[in-house]
Amino acid sequence: MSVEQWGVHELTYSGPSDGNPFADVSLRVAYRYRNRVVTVDGFYDGDGVYRARFMPDRVGRWEYVTSSSAVELDGHRGSFECVPPGPGNHGPVGVHGAHHFAYADGTRYDCIGTTCYHWTYESKEIQELTLASLRSAPFDKVRMCLLPTEGMRPERLPFVGTTPGEVDVEAYDPAFFRHFESRVADLLSLGIQADLILFHPYDRGVWGFDRMKPAEDEAFLRYVVARLAAYRNVWWSLSNEYDFNREKTIADWDRLLQLVQRFDPYQRLRSIHNGTKMYEVFTPYDFSKPWITHQSVQHWDGAEVAAWRSCPKPVVIDEIGYEGNAGRRWGNLTADEMVHRFWQGMTLGGYVGHGESFVDRETRAWISVGGRLYGESPERIAFLREVMAGLPRLSDGDVDPDRCVLHYLGDRQPSSVELDLPDGPPYRFEVIDTVALTITPLPTSYTGTCRIPLPARPYLALRGTR
Amino acid sequence: MSVEQWGVHELTYSGPSDGNPFADVSLRVAYRYRNRVVTVDGFYDGDGVYRARFMPDRVGRWEYVTSSSAVELDGHRGSFECVPPGPGNHGPVGVHGAHHFAYADGTRYDCIGTTCYHWTYESKEIQELTLASLRSAPFDKVRMCLLPTEGMRPERLPFVGTTPGEVDVEAYDPAFFRHFESRVADLLSLGIQADLILFHPYDRGVWGFDRMKPAEDEAFLRYVVARLAAYRNVWWSLSNEYDFNREKTIADWDRLLQLVQRFDPYQRLRSIHNGTKMYEVFTPYDFSKPWITHQSVQHWDGAEVAAWRSCPKPVVIDEIGYEGNAGRRWGNLTADEMVHRFWQGMTLGGYVGHGESFVDRETRAWISVGGRLYGESPERIAFLREVMAGLPRLSDGDVDPDRCVLHYLGDRQPSSVELDLPDGPPYRFEVIDTVALTITPLPTSYTGTCRIPLPARPYLALRGTR
Repeated sequence: MSVEQWGVHELTYSGPSDGNPFADVSLRVAYRYRNRVVTVDGFYDGDGVYRARFMPDRVGRWEYVTSSSAVELDGHRGSFECVPPGPGNHGPVGVHGAHHFAYADGTRYDCIGTTCYHWTYESKEIQELTLASLRSAPFDKVRMCLLPTEGMRPERLPFVGTTPGEVDVEAYDPAFFRHFESRVADLLSLGIQADLILFHPYDRGVWGFDRMKPAEDEAFLRYVVARLAAYRNVWWSLSNEYDFNREKTIADWDRLLQLVQRFDPYQRLRSIHNGTKMYEVFTPYDFSKPWITHQSVQHWDGAEVAAWRSCPKPVVIDEIGYEGNAGRRWGNLTADEMVHRFWQGMTLGGYVGHGESFVDRETRAWISVGGRLYGESPERIAFLREVMAGLPRLSDGDVDPDRCVLHYLGDRQPSSVELDLPDGPPYRFEVIDTVALTITPLPTSYTGTCRIPLPARPYLALRGTR
Repeated sequence: MSVEQWGVHELTYSGPSDGNPFADVSLRVAYRYRNRVVTVDGFYDGDGVYRARFMPDRVGRWEYVTSSSAVELDGHRGSFECVPPGPGNHGPVGVHGAHHFAYADGTRYDCIGTTCYHWTYESKEIQELTLASLRSAPFDKVRMCLLPTEGMRPERLPFVGTTPGEVDVEAYDPAFFRHFESRVADLLSLGIQADLILFHPYDRGVWGFDRMKPAEDEAFLRYVVARLAAYRNVWWSLSNEYDFNREKTIADWDRLLQLVQRFDPYQRLRSIHNGTKMYEVFTPYDFSKPWITHQSVQHWDGAEVAAWRSCPKPVVIDEIGYEGNAGRRWGNLTADEMVHRFWQGMTLGGYVGHGESFVDRETRAWISVGGRLYGESPERIAFLREVMAGLPRLSDGDVDPDRCVLHYLGDRQPSSVELDLPDGPPYRFEVIDTVALTITPLPTSYTGTCRIPLPARPYLALRGTR
């Protein structure tokens, strides 16, 4: 049996099904490659079936041995061959330099995600439509929730039971997870990261998932990590708008983040997302804490990226406002305004995520359910992605100013702009129209302090190369 | 001899021309209407000629008597008949209620001004062009400077001399003032207020007008008020961007404002205009001081009007940014953004001023020199003015919510909006498109808390009437 590098090796055993196997039975598997040992948690998958999943990160022979509180599951041994990755498999994404990302094989990852919070809870039809939409969209990450909101009444939950007040938070629904994992795998096959939102404040005690006991939170996280961490496209977002949950303190979030850090053998990307007073005060989580890998920000102003980069972790504005026609401020940006914010944030060395919230179309708002995209921004974001991908980079991932400068000029309409370029050979310039999606060379080259004439339209960028 | 109400009565006498008559000779004229006495300063107009100007505010017989340090000017007596105002003469503008303006005859004044700082310094041709532009523009006030900037080398100054370093700030150039006054009178004949900027920080010591001695400032202000206060369209703006002048303290500005308050027999509208860090911190002058009649604000955000109205004086955002294509942030707004800011400020019960800064057209930037208007905003501002003029008002000048509500919906594109309307009879609504300049009735009426469908475009307003 062989598994490709960064693929999933899965073990299956039969074991006890009496009592609460989720809580009563422990299963651990130690994987060994030469002198390197990685230990993973197994998990109960219902009907007396236990599984363990593992992502090998080295090509060659791996051996394993199980240990368990149940005799039937203890002491199983075996081995498999890890073979080189297939086409399109670049491994998991990790942090590169201070402010960027790369796949494990060194390929640059330009984090331009989108959000479909509960797309896996929708009808099969809508889920397939979402995947079809994502296939032709420019997004490489999807933010998505495990837990339902207060208003949803889904057929299956991560926990056992479907009636508010009657859910057993100490037992999990394997069928829910098998489905959820298949959607994570679908995203993987599209080359899309699954930024899994583990908690959120939109429960308000209806399900009680926002106010479980510390031991329940811990067991839930352990189970989720055991099932999902082996998928190389998984990221952990401990909570959406964590500060809107009044049942938990910063110390609680610190603890939960550290639990995921401890459970996860692969150290998948890990952050937490603020919500506070988006249009007034910005009080994010302290991203300098060691268990945070990147800054997952909600803020409307892409220009703030420059300040946030003083923390040496990638800046990802996962919510910058959504294109759409919702009644709420966060959900009725024009495409012009939305893409303007993208260009601001991305050209300053940050990453920006998309969302769409048209509330009166055939499928409901993309940010909630997925479905179909109606906005004008995805095409413009695809263009932005191409421009960003074509920039020469330093080894730390920042744009190399000796070879290229990229200035986004914003929503004003100056007839010229003064730039302070590095001295030396002149740069050849192009005017990038971020709305018309055109790139037009300028006749003159420039270096040092210079004034460059412009067509006096809003939403332009200047790219200079030498 | 007769003068119409709120017109100008002028007296002319011959007197001493030796020494420095501006400083050496005092001339005062006491005007009496029944038991009411108004005393004005006269002024030296060169070549041994002295004048005094007076604006009568009551219809009927006025008597006067002069007093002077010079025998030739002392003890002259006379009278004139003040007759009812002619067509279009509504008197001077004053504060109405806490936050609005009205002419002396009770006609509402909707303060929508523009800025042409140095238009009176330009060639005769350009000045005539400016007046022609203003004739067909929707503006009822012009901000304009008495003093030149550091870079200008005009043929005439308010003071004697035209070479930096060789100007006598204790003597004035009557020819300069006669010309300047004729332009103030030209504005008056167009029904436009002249918001006279008495000092500004764009001198940087080149002329030294930004750092005159206290006695020189006082004499200058006294002379300016003596010459100009009688024109009923005059307002006093003590300084533009006063906080950029490091030679003067707040105490200095307090004193200068109080001097104008003391010299001006008509108590013309009086304010001072901030400049500090327009895009960062807003630190205006304390407009609650008793010598301030209205808030003359520089700020880019019309939405702040709501907060500033906590000070019970009219809010006039004289600089909110300019439509144009200048290189500087303040001067390259699109028409969309500029007019958006107007609607924000005006619908919140403030007033907003226009400016235009196209730097590459036949005439230079309107805000500096006047000339021709190139932007798209004046037409939209004319439409806004019409809408504002048609609103039913309470006696304090605010819109009467029992008869009409006006909500500007901003630069977003919601497909509906929730309004909290006063209970009672329903309002008939119209959608106002502030860009297309259309007003479209909605089929349904609304009252109380309601959700109103919208065409999901930016820059709309809703007007409800009952």
